[in-house]
Amino acid sequence: MKDMNDKKIHGAEIICVGTELLMGHTLNTNAGYLAKQLAELGIPSFRQTVVGDNVERLALQIKESAGRSDLVILTGGLGPTTDDLTMETAASVAGLPLVLHEESYKSLTGFFERIGRPMTENNMKQAILPNPAVIFQNTNGTAPGAMFDCPAPNAGDPDHVARLILLPGPPSEVVPMFTLSVRPILEKLAPFTLRTSYVHLIGVGESAAETKIKDMIDTQVNPTIAPYAAEGECMFRVTQRIDSENDPDLLTPVIEELKARFGGHIYEIGTRSMKEVAYDLLLAGNLTISFAESCTSGMVSSELGDIPGASKVFSGSVVSYDNRIKTAALGVPEILLDTFGAVSEECAAAMAEGCRKLMGTDIAVSLTGIAGPDGGTEERPVGLVYLAISDKSGTAVKKLSLRGNRMRIRRVASLEAFNLIRQRLI
Amino acid sequence: MKDMNDKKIHGAEIICVGTELLMGHTLNTNAGYLAKQLAELGIPSFRQTVVGDNVERLALQIKESAGRSDLVILTGGLGPTTDDLTMETAASVAGLPLVLHEESYKSLTGFFERIGRPMTENNMKQAILPNPAVIFQNTNGTAPGAMFDCPAPNAGDPDHVARLILLPGPPSEVVPMFTLSVRPILEKLAPFTLRTSYVHLIGVGESAAETKIKDMIDTQVNPTIAPYAAEGECMFRVTQRIDSENDPDLLTPVIEELKARFGGHIYEIGTRSMKEVAYDLLLAGNLTISFAESCTSGMVSSELGDIPGASKVFSGSVVSYDNRIKTAALGVPEILLDTFGAVSEECAAAMAEGCRKLMGTDIAVSLTGIAGPDGGTEERPVGLVYLAISDKSGTAVKKLSLRGNRMRIRRVASLEAFNLIRQRLI
Repeated sequence: MKDMNDKKIHGAEIICVGTELLMGHTLNTNAGYLAKQLAELGIPSFRQTVVGDNVERLALQIKESAGRSDLVILTGGLGPTTDDLTMETAASVAGLPLVLHEESYKSLTGFFERIGRPMTENNMKQAILPNPAVIFQNTNGTAPGAMFDCPAPNAGDPDHVARLILLPGPPSEVVPMFTLSVRPILEKLAPFTLRTSYVHLIGVGESAAETKIKDMIDTQVNPTIAPYAAEGECMFRVTQRIDSENDPDLLTPVIEELKARFGGHIYEIGTRSMKEVAYDLLLAGNLTISFAESCTSGMVSSELGDIPGASKVFSGSVVSYDNRIKTAALGVPEILLDTFGAVSEECAAAMAEGCRKLMGTDIAVSLTGIAGPDGGTEERPVGLVYLAISDKSGTAVKKLSLRGNRMRIRRVASLEAFNLIRQRLI
Repeated sequence: MKDMNDKKIHGAEIICVGTELLMGHTLNTNAGYLAKQLAELGIPSFRQTVVGDNVERLALQIKESAGRSDLVILTGGLGPTTDDLTMETAASVAGLPLVLHEESYKSLTGFFERIGRPMTENNMKQAILPNPAVIFQNTNGTAPGAMFDCPAPNAGDPDHVARLILLPGPPSEVVPMFTLSVRPILEKLAPFTLRTSYVHLIGVGESAAETKIKDMIDTQVNPTIAPYAAEGECMFRVTQRIDSENDPDLLTPVIEELKARFGGHIYEIGTRSMKEVAYDLLLAGNLTISFAESCTSGMVSSELGDIPGASKVFSGSVVSYDNRIKTAALGVPEILLDTFGAVSEECAAAMAEGCRKLMGTDIAVSLTGIAGPDGGTEERPVGLVYLAISDKSGTAVKKLSLRGNRMRIRRVASLEAFNLIRQRLI
């Protein structure tokens, strides 16, 4: 076998294994995650394939992919059950024997001791691994990953050898294993370096944003500018290809031009999401926050709670789904609800002020609106949302008219809640 | 060309076209949606592929897929811009000319009149379609879809012809077009029908679950049993193949056997998620619920709020991230917090009871725990979560020792909160 340790990777493919993917029972998030990682690493990726838990079709797919690519990343089929066949199949295509891997065996028995459950014979299979191979420990599950060479001669190169990387199926295992073990290896094997900057915008649609820089996109060579739309926001990915250390910085002038054209619509140049920008501003100002949520029913609080260390700024929230709670917990006067309704500027302001008082925080943000599908009227249609922010300097209200389904309306309203914090603090 | 109108489809593939998918910028939900549709129709689907907006690679992929399958469904690349190449490429592989399709042209001009924008020359391209072909009108966008035959001889059958179906990229266009135009055609072409039942379990790992029915899986022919794992739960998919209307019901005996073996671990036989099961039980009992959330910081409330009509059972919540809020809003005595700590059986019970009182609901559920990554001690490690449920009959506490990262711990704790409601109400 040819030693591949220094061979640059010019093309990669992703194979996701699992009948549950072919049947549409599980959404394939691994392919997108790995594709994004490869793009960031500057490794071109030309194909993604999903095959079922079927030895012949999987073996055929591995041969095909290995024959035309330098790197093939596989996910799924490393579990303990009889339909988990990826490790055996890939080892067999690569012509490698399977042997007991002592370290993985110890790690497996230790895992079952810790959780106090008996280890089944099935699980033992997960310590039988190809040799020689680099084995990746799994910090979030029982299936180790592996990397090994797979000779795959093709018409252009009779000595072609592809590198196979096998990862588990659950995204909660794939992400840490890739981050900790695989990415550091691949970083050294990208054919060139990419320097990438992400420019995040809010309050401007993707197609309007693209139109505004059409001249820049039409004439781009290096760096390249690619627009992406997400729910309620959009982003430009600006990428400079770097072939040598002496290449000049071409990224900064493009970013400056984008700043000049989009101004206040830009909320982040980098990789932080809107909620992370808001969190960092709160942290920097040593400020505490609370939320009074109606139509989002805890989504904003949950989103902030995703951030490790959220407790440094986040005191708590009231989800006031029922109007009674708006009165009982947040002190919104009944007469206000009767006069203006729960979805009103007045109610949003009273909710934020009541929440700030109850929670004793520097800032409180409230949301009240109609997420649908029912409950809309001509006057107050589905998608109408009022947000308020209250601090020692006063209370401000923002009105949104959102389109889309219940989930989109709640997500965009949550995003705008963090934007409201950002705008108050910059 | 051979007429295919009555030819049964024994194998299908899905090709999704788009560089944004290869770069991981867009999550590929079309593949999963179409796969599920095919599975429901009883059309076996053996492969999903993603390729970029590249004529050569796309043409090669269509040839490969058409050569081995009876049906190839493509999505994406039907837009008006220069990198939308799927229609031309597929027509060229099939050997069909592109001609102006009058009906689509009228529909396009009508669309632009309605929205009051000028039609660009680019858009005109979307009315130039292969002939002969069945054209699908797009009720949610400008790109029509198409179905046509593609001769693709293979080793086994020199007369092999595949049916190509081309759909747009945006899921909001794919779903209505498939439902209205494609599904009715495919229903007539499925080789047999599948009857499927889903058995959802909680509190038993995938591999332990499979071990318990190894004898059934090892001897299965029809129905088949397939296990799937998700965060904190697992599922068996039981599928019976039905060739004629007179086939006996083989599904029920298998479901009964699974019930006998797993008993209380089964929370649903059907397609409802745990939160939907809990919601339906609350609705049936005409009961209201509230939550006091600490480590999950609003996730349980947000999950329940995802369900349209949640307001029928859900009054509100307190997210008591900070201990001050546990006292101020939920009335947890300071002395209790000082004595037992916030992550304790005692605190969980007091939170649930205080929440029920504040919100005036029939039931209140609380969660307090350590989601990590920081904050764990030897005595109270990351993953320790206490849940409590309180109603007129009293308060019960449940202790969980969860593994995994912050997100997994919060998700599984949320799942268990809904399970607690279910267990109280069945």
